[in-house]
Amino acid sequence: MNGLTSTRAAVLATFGESVGIREFPVPPPDEGQIVVAVRYGGVCGTDVHLRAGFLRVPLPLVLGHEGVGTVVTCGNGAGEDYFGSPLRPGDQVMWSSSISCGRCVACGRREPTLCLRRSTYGVTLGLADHPGLSGSWAGHMVLRAGTTVVKLPDAVPPLAAASLACAGPTMVHALHDRRPVRPGDVVVVQGSGPVGLAAAALSHLAGAAQVILVGGPAERLDLAARSGFGDHHLDVEGPDGPEPALAAVMDLTGGKGADLVIECTGSPPAVAQGLRMAARGGAYLVVGQYTDRGDTEVNPHLIVYKQLDVLGSWGFTGAHLAEYVNLLPALTRRFDLEKLVVTYPLEAADQALDDVEAGAVMKAVLVAG
Amino acid sequence: MNGLTSTRAAVLATFGESVGIREFPVPPPDEGQIVVAVRYGGVCGTDVHLRAGFLRVPLPLVLGHEGVGTVVTCGNGAGEDYFGSPLRPGDQVMWSSSISCGRCVACGRREPTLCLRRSTYGVTLGLADHPGLSGSWAGHMVLRAGTTVVKLPDAVPPLAAASLACAGPTMVHALHDRRPVRPGDVVVVQGSGPVGLAAAALSHLAGAAQVILVGGPAERLDLAARSGFGDHHLDVEGPDGPEPALAAVMDLTGGKGADLVIECTGSPPAVAQGLRMAARGGAYLVVGQYTDRGDTEVNPHLIVYKQLDVLGSWGFTGAHLAEYVNLLPALTRRFDLEKLVVTYPLEAADQALDDVEAGAVMKAVLVAG
Amino acid sequence: MNGLTSTRAAVLATFGESVGIREFPVPPPDEGQIVVAVRYGGVCGTDVHLRAGFLRVPLPLVLGHEGVGTVVTCGNGAGEDYFGSPLRPGDQVMWSSSISCGRCVACGRREPTLCLRRSTYGVTLGLADHPGLSGSWAGHMVLRAGTTVVKLPDAVPPLAAASLACAGPTMVHALHDRRPVRPGDVVVVQGSGPVGLAAAALSHLAGAAQVILVGGPAERLDLAARSGFGDHHLDVEGPDGPEPALAAVMDLTGGKGADLVIECTGSPPAVAQGLRMAARGGAYLVVGQYTDRGDTEVNPHLIVYKQLDVLGSWGFTGAHLAEYVNLLPALTRRFDLEKLVVTYPLEAADQALDDVEAGAVMKAVLVAG
Amino acid sequence: MNGLTSTRAAVLATFGESVGIREFPVPPPDEGQIVVAVRYGGVCGTDVHLRAGFLRVPLPLVLGHEGVGTVVTCGNGAGEDYFGSPLRPGDQVMWSSSISCGRCVACGRREPTLCLRRSTYGVTLGLADHPGLSGSWAGHMVLRAGTTVVKLPDAVPPLAAASLACAGPTMVHALHDRRPVRPGDVVVVQGSGPVGLAAAALSHLAGAAQVILVGGPAERLDLAARSGFGDHHLDVEGPDGPEPALAAVMDLTGGKGADLVIECTGSPPAVAQGLRMAARGGAYLVVGQYTDRGDTEVNPHLIVYKQLDVLGSWGFTGAHLAEYVNLLPALTRRFDLEKLVVTYPLEAADQALDDVEAGAVMKAVLVAG
Ligand SMILES: [Zn+2]
Ligand SMILES: [Zn+2]
Ligand SMILES: [Zn+2]
Ligand SMILES: [Zn+2]
Ligand SMILES: [Zn+2]
Ligand SMILES: [Zn+2]
Ligand SMILES: [Zn+2]
Ligand SMILES: [Zn+2]
Repeated sequence: MNGLTSTRAAVLATFGESVGIREFPVPPPDEGQIVVAVRYGGVCGTDVHLRAGFLRVPLPLVLGHEGVGTVVTCGNGAGEDYFGSPLRPGDQVMWSSSISCGRCVACGRREPTLCLRRSTYGVTLGLADHPGLSGSWAGHMVLRAGTTVVKLPDAVPPLAAASLACAGPTMVHALHDRRPVRPGDVVVVQGSGPVGLAAAALSHLAGAAQVILVGGPAERLDLAARSGFGDHHLDVEGPDGPEPALAAVMDLTGGKGADLVIECTGSPPAVAQGLRMAARGGAYLVVGQYTDRGDTEVNPHLIVYKQLDVLGSWGFTGAHLAEYVNLLPALTRRFDLEKLVVTYPLEAADQALDDVEAGAVMKAVLVAG
Repeated sequence: MNGLTSTRAAVLATFGESVGIREFPVPPPDEGQIVVAVRYGGVCGTDVHLRAGFLRVPLPLVLGHEGVGTVVTCGNGAGEDYFGSPLRPGDQVMWSSSISCGRCVACGRREPTLCLRRSTYGVTLGLADHPGLSGSWAGHMVLRAGTTVVKLPDAVPPLAAASLACAGPTMVHALHDRRPVRPGDVVVVQGSGPVGLAAAALSHLAGAAQVILVGGPAERLDLAARSGFGDHHLDVEGPDGPEPALAAVMDLTGGKGADLVIECTGSPPAVAQGLRMAARGGAYLVVGQYTDRGDTEVNPHLIVYKQLDVLGSWGFTGAHLAEYVNLLPALTRRFDLEKLVVTYPLEAADQALDDVEAGAVMKAVLVAG
Repeated sequence: MNGLTSTRAAVLATFGESVGIREFPVPPPDEGQIVVAVRYGGVCGTDVHLRAGFLRVPLPLVLGHEGVGTVVTCGNGAGEDYFGSPLRPGDQVMWSSSISCGRCVACGRREPTLCLRRSTYGVTLGLADHPGLSGSWAGHMVLRAGTTVVKLPDAVPPLAAASLACAGPTMVHALHDRRPVRPGDVVVVQGSGPVGLAAAALSHLAGAAQVILVGGPAERLDLAARSGFGDHHLDVEGPDGPEPALAAVMDLTGGKGADLVIECTGSPPAVAQGLRMAARGGAYLVVGQYTDRGDTEVNPHLIVYKQLDVLGSWGFTGAHLAEYVNLLPALTRRFDLEKLVVTYPLEAADQALDDVEAGAVMKAVLVAG
Repeated sequence: MNGLTSTRAAVLATFGESVGIREFPVPPPDEGQIVVAVRYGGVCGTDVHLRAGFLRVPLPLVLGHEGVGTVVTCGNGAGEDYFGSPLRPGDQVMWSSSISCGRCVACGRREPTLCLRRSTYGVTLGLADHPGLSGSWAGHMVLRAGTTVVKLPDAVPPLAAASLACAGPTMVHALHDRRPVRPGDVVVVQGSGPVGLAAAALSHLAGAAQVILVGGPAERLDLAARSGFGDHHLDVEGPDGPEPALAAVMDLTGGKGADLVIECTGSPPAVAQGLRMAARGGAYLVVGQYTDRGDTEVNPHLIVYKQLDVLGSWGFTGAHLAEYVNLLPALTRRFDLEKLVVTYPLEAADQALDDVEAGAVMKAVLVAG
């Protein structure tokens, strides 16, 4: 560690108040741990909820569950990444945001995302959780034993990797494990935020014949189009409401609907719309309803009459992060990922949160250094 | 045909009016056709809808899409059943209710149940469709080329086979193709009509650790229990409404919910309840919402948070009928299928329809002979 | 039909002898039939076997199971293609090579490729099978009721469509139904004939991270590389035998082997090699062992130790052909399909067969007219 | 621990020599650990190989990777079993034989059985691995953090649980994850040792229409039949070799072969036979080829012509053990599991190994206490 003694971190001390910058000593890594220097710490809707106090998490808390950084020191037994490559100081890496318990039914039945004993950096691991430095909005972090760590391929710009740090693995989970895109599929993506763009990007990569991005507002759709996401862009936030866009989907699909509809909005009424846009024999992948916003009206007959697969997908694991990293060379060749990101210095964390809350940016990323 | 010249059939001539008995000549079978003597013609909720005029079907119409009968004469090229056994006069057989086109996307993508060109005995094939005699509420029927025909195993009483003639293959489709029961699964079945009982029976056969039947009224649940269907029986039609039953499901599953919930009610609000009863990582098989009864409120967050598979299943094919017949020896060994049936003479078709509409019988079956 | 009275066709009259050209009247189409003018009739290894008499087929026989052509006249009830588009004279179409029975276990269990009652144009349907004209090595063909017919997208050159007429749908079956490529997969393809090239092309389209083509001789690999198939090309027919190529696969995969190995050689010893090249947890898709060439030595421990999926795939259906046609716009954008083809006039059918037998051409196609 | 100071264990000190009994202090459990009193320690073919020195494992080694026992003391953080039930001293439990790393591709891609960093009680964890007592052939064991522990249901006799302690979870892995039995399937099991009987038992539970057990010698098949395993029993070790048994399988299946063939023999030539006994469209689950015994001759054309799924399955995880325990009430209701076991005192470990090696017993179990 060459005399390194301290680092700065953005700390949430009180729900509903500003995030403050504090200074902390950087400990040496214990058995299985890795100390990383954070280069980019992503800002998510979850972070907005945390600041507002909507989730019960331990305070004070260093925020930040997404990150790209550089290996500083590896503890004993932590010298390899997920793919078995040796880890050395200076290597650029990403890491999983959560650690599952590995010995419950959820973990054993192969859905560690459902593990009730998961701990999550920047969310459930507070300052009091030894050895601290558990969030990516900081100069340094201590990655716990059991964290999935993956080296970035050389050709991938770290900022591009940060652009879909949460959305990318979330959609890898949904699309690799829950309902893969089949070459030739017509795909509708509901939502034009990062999760929607990740859905579109992975659908393109997997050979979709047509990707129809249904979202808004217009500037978001423009940014998506300019960056390579989607073949068609339909605005559901226009003055006439969503109906013209829904009708356009049916037109584009010859009246049949889409083979696969991917919900990435978080808005309950989107579900009724998605069920209408799916073709008979098609699938509806529900990814965006991450927060409980209560009931919505749907027509359950459509599920039977169209014989749909309606599939939820919750979070992601280290394996999904690793597969996202594995796809980054292909993603960066085809899409302009860096164009999606607006960076902020660590001190501007509150501004970044405000901008995310207002939908003013596609993806906010904090730069610690 | 030994001089056979005529047969009787129950004919719907005008929507909303009584079914009448008429006499018809029995034609010899053309290429690929089989003439059968019907022994039992099942009565379904669909038939109630047909009499009421809720579906646009050709009139006049010999009703009856379900049947068990005896081979009278096989046309050229129709001498084998689905499993390749020779068919001979006197053989007891069942046959598929529908014929798919075999050359559309639905048929080609392997979901012939979604074929838009399907023709269905007793529903879309009217008297005017050559050669007529297209419903099972009759002494004789002419099975068209392309109909799946299956011989009944010797040990199976024909009335037992008739008990789940529609419900059995419907659930074979749902459980063999859409979401199989895994040995050790805890299964909740919503609905205690024939489809619910078929769901329970197939779940038992497949090694479910526990089958919880949630339905009503009490007499139906009693009949189900006495006939061997379900390990627990919860009444959602009692004076306190469904909530106590839903709470009991959570108690019986240690607070976790069921691995698989199977909806067999046709009642839209059941869907919101079913989503609540499924465990995280579980599946919800929606089979009962066959008729469009409009919207209902559900919480879409549950689909994501629990990472559910919500799977619709529509109708069945001849292959599913054949697999039902193949399971009949095991089903009759374990369940008292004949106890589910009330028989009526062909002349009492209207009474049978009234009793089905009133829910007064579990399964009504017409006896032509 | 505007006075059309006759067409020419290449007829095999005696096993082991030359194919001769004969003249036939073109009948009007019956119910469900379509008369097409054949533009390209593909030549396959199967045709070489037919001429040699290795298969028991009815003689005399118009050869040709693969074709691209133009609609001349549609019979009653045959006015739509598989996707529901209207068919009109002059439309460019492809058609399925086989018709399954639709009412046996194979057809019902959704594997019509295994149907024992299949009839195949140019193979099992001889001149004596009414109405004749059942092979694509002819100016005209009569497509039977039940044939899957698909219109070619406007942008697709018919010769490009003909290049993988058999190999493309064969690999669609294997890769869409048996073991899909997952985005990020490392894929090894064994064999550099048309089936191998189709495997490589579909793997690229589906987002494979790396496609390693293992085949030979060198000119075939060069043609494959120049036409866009494969990222790496390894020659197993070189003077040192296959071992250097196998070692190179392990090098290219970091010693782990491939996620998916696709066998497209037809050579039994390739199977032992393929099992060695698959990674632990990987899959081995066996497509090429179409002909029974007897036993070969394999190490069955590898199947268990690596926990492999070893999956056979047999033939294809009309649905697979339709999905191939559906992918042709994407395929022609990315690969130079026409470069794979050498055309011959109908009179040179024997020369084409000789060249296919000698491996002198990648794909031979007859031009009828 | 109430003054407990020591326990006895069977120790392999030198390859090829006898197992000796030694005395060890029982340490208190560290964080995450559980000290158990072993009631039954199973003996496996693997143990025979270990004694013979066929595997490189650390010596000295307390043998025994299978066990049933009683909780003595739970360390901090180890107070719950896999299903979330509290663990208390005196509870009867089983535990997983191996612990995977949880952070490699195999673990992340959901096949922890393929993890190269697995540690296995009684195999890779020697006396020198802190805190020792790592094998079940002992009075006590220390279960490491990360071990899956499952309470036995009250109704299950511990000796019954021990009967298939390794074979049961091995087949749960194969049949729940790799290729489930479908209700109505005709299943052939090759091999009549514990793995074969577990395959038969789970196939019965899952609703197989018919289970044909192909093995030998005659006494083993008799024991299987008397204990409830299999509907038909065919001897492949008789004087006429395996051919009559293979022919009998075809007779019993109407010439079609089995929907599922499960290989549980460990003998390479069984693989060629299994491929012959599978039906077209069927599956071949290869479980027994655990040890590399070199090449064998197979006909690879059968994999394509029959379009088989040939699926390897390797080992099992804690989740599979837990699902086995979950099925034990159903298994003990239907099969006489205790009849399969011969018990030996700990001192007779060498005799037990000799008997297993000679095939003289179905299942040998050591009794420590
Ligand atoms: Zn867990
Ligand atoms: Zn995030
Ligand atoms: Zn159809
Ligand atoms: Zn019915
Ligand atoms: Zn067939
Ligand atoms: Zn061909
Ligand atoms: Zn691992
Ligand atoms: Zn064992």
